[in-house]
Amino acid sequence: MFEVKVTIGLKKGVSDPEGANTLRALKLLGFNNVKEAKMIRTVDLLIDDKNKDEVKKSVEQMCQRLLTNPVIHTYEIEIIKK
Amino acid sequence: MFEVKVTIGLKKGVSDPEGANTLRALKLLGFNNVKEAKMIRTVDLLIDDKNKDEVKKSVEQMCQRLLTNPVIHTYEIEIIKK
Repeated sequence: MFEVKVTIGLKKGVSDPEGANTLRALKLLGFNNVKEAKMIRTVDLLIDDKNKDEVKKSVEQMCQRLLTNPVIHTYEIEIIKK
Repeated sequence: MFEVKVTIGLKKGVSDPEGANTLRALKLLGFNNVKEAKMIRTVDLLIDDKNKDEVKKSVEQMCQRLLTNPVIHTYEIEIIKK
């Protein structure tokens, strides 16, 4: 079994409305020390496959076909053997 | 400056519809090696404060007042000096 963390962020220049709203709301609550807020999504998968290479290949495909939008997202794959 | 990563997950027993839908969609696409899918949100903050203790106190308050719902969420705070 492998645990795989796919961290999905936004490409440079793509607007992050959720982050912008979080920043605004924090300032409204009086947290003036916050200078930036970004939202990042992580998909945590449990995968049953032979070896790390197979897992990596499979997860790359998942990212391209479902998990991310290549136009706006960047992603990082971290694989942990369980 | 401090970079703070607040990782927000769901408490045990709280349903994760986004994760469940991701798992279903991956299986429909033929990825039968996936056994579990969980969605985790991370808020990445840039904070200007005197020291790590002040930052930690401030971020704890942000979590309680805005970023998380204590009934369903768990959170973890990671502080990196920049």
